[in-house]
Amino acid sequence: MTDFFALHHAETPLLLPNAWDFTSGAALFDAGFPAIGTTSLGVAAAHGLPDGRGRTRTETVALARSLTRLPGPVTVDIEAGFSEDPGEVADLAAELASFGTAGINLEDSRPTGGLAEPDDHAALVSAVKTRVPGLFVNARIDAHWQTEHPPPLTRVLDRARRYVAAGADGIFVPGLNDSADIAALAGGLPVPLNILYARGLDYRDLGVARVSLGSLLYRAALHTATTLARSIRDGGAAPDDIPGYRDIERFIP
Amino acid sequence: MTDFFALHHAETPLLLPNAWDFTSGAALFDAGFPAIGTTSLGVAAAHGLPDGRGRTRTETVALARSLTRLPGPVTVDIEAGFSEDPGEVADLAAELASFGTAGINLEDSRPTGGLAEPDDHAALVSAVKTRVPGLFVNARIDAHWQTEHPPPLTRVLDRARRYVAAGADGIFVPGLNDSADIAALAGGLPVPLNILYARGLDYRDLGVARVSLGSLLYRAALHTATTLARSIRDGGAAPDDIPGYRDIERFIP
Repeated sequence: MTDFFALHHAETPLLLPNAWDFTSGAALFDAGFPAIGTTSLGVAAAHGLPDGRGRTRTETVALARSLTRLPGPVTVDIEAGFSEDPGEVADLAAELASFGTAGINLEDSRPTGGLAEPDDHAALVSAVKTRVPGLFVNARIDAHWQTEHPPPLTRVLDRARRYVAAGADGIFVPGLNDSADIAALAGGLPVPLNILYARGLDYRDLGVARVSLGSLLYRAALHTATTLARSIRDGGAAPDDIPGYRDIERFIP
Repeated sequence: MTDFFALHHAETPLLLPNAWDFTSGAALFDAGFPAIGTTSLGVAAAHGLPDGRGRTRTETVALARSLTRLPGPVTVDIEAGFSEDPGEVADLAAELASFGTAGINLEDSRPTGGLAEPDDHAALVSAVKTRVPGLFVNARIDAHWQTEHPPPLTRVLDRARRYVAAGADGIFVPGLNDSADIAALAGGLPVPLNILYARGLDYRDLGVARVSLGSLLYRAALHTATTLARSIRDGGAAPDDIPGYRDIERFIP
């Protein structure tokens, strides 16, 4: 099995594509990606449940269980841990690790809205790392995520340092799209920095260790489905490069 | 609520797109389709379970339950009914109807391989229609599905007539792609004929009542995800027309 930690110390950033179901994960490994993540938006949307509201614990664990049957490391987006109790979040992490999950994302936004107090989130990170030291804990800082008024970078760096002190193996700041800020943050951290893919951002040579696609693939997939259905309704024909039934069936054990 | 039966008697064939998860269904209704189906391949692939092997009963019911929250008729692909016992298949149909499912597809291929004896399959259709008369039962004949040597059309017509005599509301023959055969079958049936979309087949003016997209949208969606991930890995940029996070989140109740 590929060493998931080592993938964060390669010459080029780890490009991490995010699956929303078993076969999207299987197809991504088949496409040559050395590791995959999950997307909480994709999991929530697939089941008709809200994202980031702590409602998808069962579905997240079920997906993780199926994806860990695949031949490579899987890191699982567990939103804010589906609990504010450090012991319960550690329980979840231990359950995921028990069947082979390589890492988790643990975000500091909270289902009730807003960001956690930094020390409260650090306590979750610490509980997980104490219980499951071998699990790669990517602590996600949501200060730049879906906000029009992100705080100064010093505030993000302060959160990052507290999470690292608590044991975080990596720091993820989705929505951080300014090259200078990214380079400054990467340079100020003792652990790998993960950013979210953004169109037009050249993430090479910034010191970034990992680039996640987040919900992009799920959104693109859904867009293709509706666009194709509309096109056929309007008299168009399906493209000739869509995989056949057997091409998909081969991914299923 | 749209009358699902009436949609089979419109001036133009009902184009039925098939969802594999909650949000694909929501997005298809949003795109203006008056009704949707499910795809057993999509459901199986999403959960890493084999298709057509009777293994996805739980996942199929869960998906149906979530899709019937949407504002339009939903018809559910239940493979061969997940049982050979007519009473158990009727139980499943009653469960699906209890939360608002408008129709089912019931196929005459069997999880063990090969086609059912026509009378055995007719017994399943009959049991369902007796228990749940208001459910649209689309009896699927798999004689032309994934076989290189389909039987003469008379054999298909014989099966169709037995299923109709047992109460089937529609007949579905996936893999029937010859225009003359389609027109002959449509003309010989007292109930609506459903065919599977095939690239290049002009299904207008053949007497077809319903055209299903089957697993096409799921396959196209998955293809987009892997193609986009590969493209970004190779230095390409994501297209600028992919819906944003909020565009997907709006589909979730």
